[in-house]
Amino acid sequence: MALKAAGRTSLVDSVVEQLRAQLTDGEWAVGDRIPTEHELAQQLGVGRNTVREAVRVLVHAGLLESRQGNGTFVRSTADPAAVLRGVRHAGAADVLELRVALEAEAARLAAVRRDTHDLLRLRAALTTLREEGDRDADADLAFHLAVVGATHNATFVEVYRFFSAQVHEVLVEALGDREMPPVDIDAHEALVEAVEAGDPEAAERQARELLRVPMETVAALTGGAVRNR
Amino acid sequence: MALKAAGRTSLVDSVVEQLRAQLTDGEWAVGDRIPTEHELAQQLGVGRNTVREAVRVLVHAGLLESRQGNGTFVRSTADPAAVLRGVRHAGAADVLELRVALEAEAARLAAVRRDTHDLLRLRAALTTLREEGDRDADADLAFHLAVVGATHNATFVEVYRFFSAQVHEVLVEALGDREMPPVDIDAHEALVEAVEAGDPEAAERQARELLRVPMETVAALTGGAVRNR
Repeated sequence: MALKAAGRTSLVDSVVEQLRAQLTDGEWAVGDRIPTEHELAQQLGVGRNTVREAVRVLVHAGLLESRQGNGTFVRSTADPAAVLRGVRHAGAADVLELRVALEAEAARLAAVRRDTHDLLRLRAALTTLREEGDRDADADLAFHLAVVGATHNATFVEVYRFFSAQVHEVLVEALGDREMPPVDIDAHEALVEAVEAGDPEAAERQARELLRVPMETVAALTGGAVRNR
Repeated sequence: MALKAAGRTSLVDSVVEQLRAQLTDGEWAVGDRIPTEHELAQQLGVGRNTVREAVRVLVHAGLLESRQGNGTFVRSTADPAAVLRGVRHAGAADVLELRVALEAEAARLAAVRRDTHDLLRLRAALTTLREEGDRDADADLAFHLAVVGATHNATFVEVYRFFSAQVHEVLVEALGDREMPPVDIDAHEALVEAVEAGDPEAAERQARELLRVPMETVAALTGGAVRNR
C-alpha cells in the first residue's frame, strides 16, 4: 500500500516534469489549448487521474489554466518554480545582488513618485526601526516595504517582498547559530532624506550603501571577498 | 461523476489555499515539520487523499518538501505563485520597470566582471542581432542573456529569464494585432562598448537608454504618459 502510494507519487511528479518541460521549451504557446486529459493519458501511457493531478499542480504553478467545460490552456511559459529552485540553491551573495538591483531601482522611483502619504509612512517606519533596535527584522522589512511602496508599482512590491523573504531565509541559514548583523539605521535615515528631497541619484546611492553591511557579512560567512561591484 | 470530480477539485484547491495562507502568514517557520496527513485531514475535515494532493501542489510550488518516511517540512514561506499572479495581473509598464531594475544592475555588474568569453559572446550576439534584424525577439533575448550571463550570477540569469519572458508575454498581449516595435541596435552596441570599457556607470546608463523605446511604446498603447522616472 505504501509502495503503491510512493509509485503513484513519483508517476505524477514525472508527468509534471514532462509537461513543464514541454511548456518551457515552447512546444505550446501562451493561449494554446493543450491536449485533453484522455489524449495526454494515452500519449504518456499513464492513467487519467495521474494526468489530472499533474495538471492541477501546473495550474497552481500559474503555467496552465482550466476553463470550465472548455479544456486546459497555457497561461504562461515562464516557470516561477525554476526561479525559486535557482534562488534556493543559490549562494547568499547571489541572492543579495538581486535584492540590490530591486532596492536601487525602487529608491530611484520612490524619490520621484512619493506622495505625502508615502513620506509619512517612511518617517513612521524609521521611527519604529529606531525604537525596536537595529536587529529587528520586522521593523527593517516594514521600512523597506515603505520605500518600495512609494514606487506606486504593485508588481514591484510583490517581487520585492518575495526576494527580501528569500534573502532573509538564505541569510538565516548561512548564519546558523550566529546573530543577524545589525542594520545601519543612519544609512536608512539618509535614504529617507534623499527620497524626501526628490533626488533619485542620491536615493539610489543610499540604497546601495545600506546593503554594504549585509554584503560584507555574507562575504565573511562564506569565507570569500566581496565580489567586484 | 463529472460533478463529483468538480467537487473534489475545488476541495483540493481550497485546502491548498488554506495551507498556503498558513505558510505565508508565518504560522509555520522554515524547517518546521507540518502536521501529518492524518492530522491535517482531521483538522480540516477532509479526506487524506485530498490532503495528499494539496501537499503535492505545495511541494511543487517550492513551499513544502517531503522527506521520505520523515514527514513534510516547510521549505520556504515566500510564495512564488503570489509573485506570478501579481505579474500576470500587472500592467505592462509595471513589469517593464522591474525589467529595468534587473537590466540596469546586470549591465553594471557585467562591466566589472566580464571575462574574454563574455566579451566574445556579447559581440557575437550583437552581430546576430544586426543580421536577423531589429524585430527578431530571439536574437534580442540572446543578446540580453549574454549581458546578464556576464554578471556570473546564475540566480540573476534565472530571474532575468523569467521576467523577460513575462515582459514579452504582457507586451504581445497588449499589442494585439500590431507589430512589436523595433529594438534600437545602436543602443545595444553602445552597451557592449561600455561593458568592454569596464565602465559600470556608462553600462547602466546605456541599459536604461535601451529600454526607453519599449517604455514609450507601452505608454502609447495604454494611452498614458511615460511615468516619472
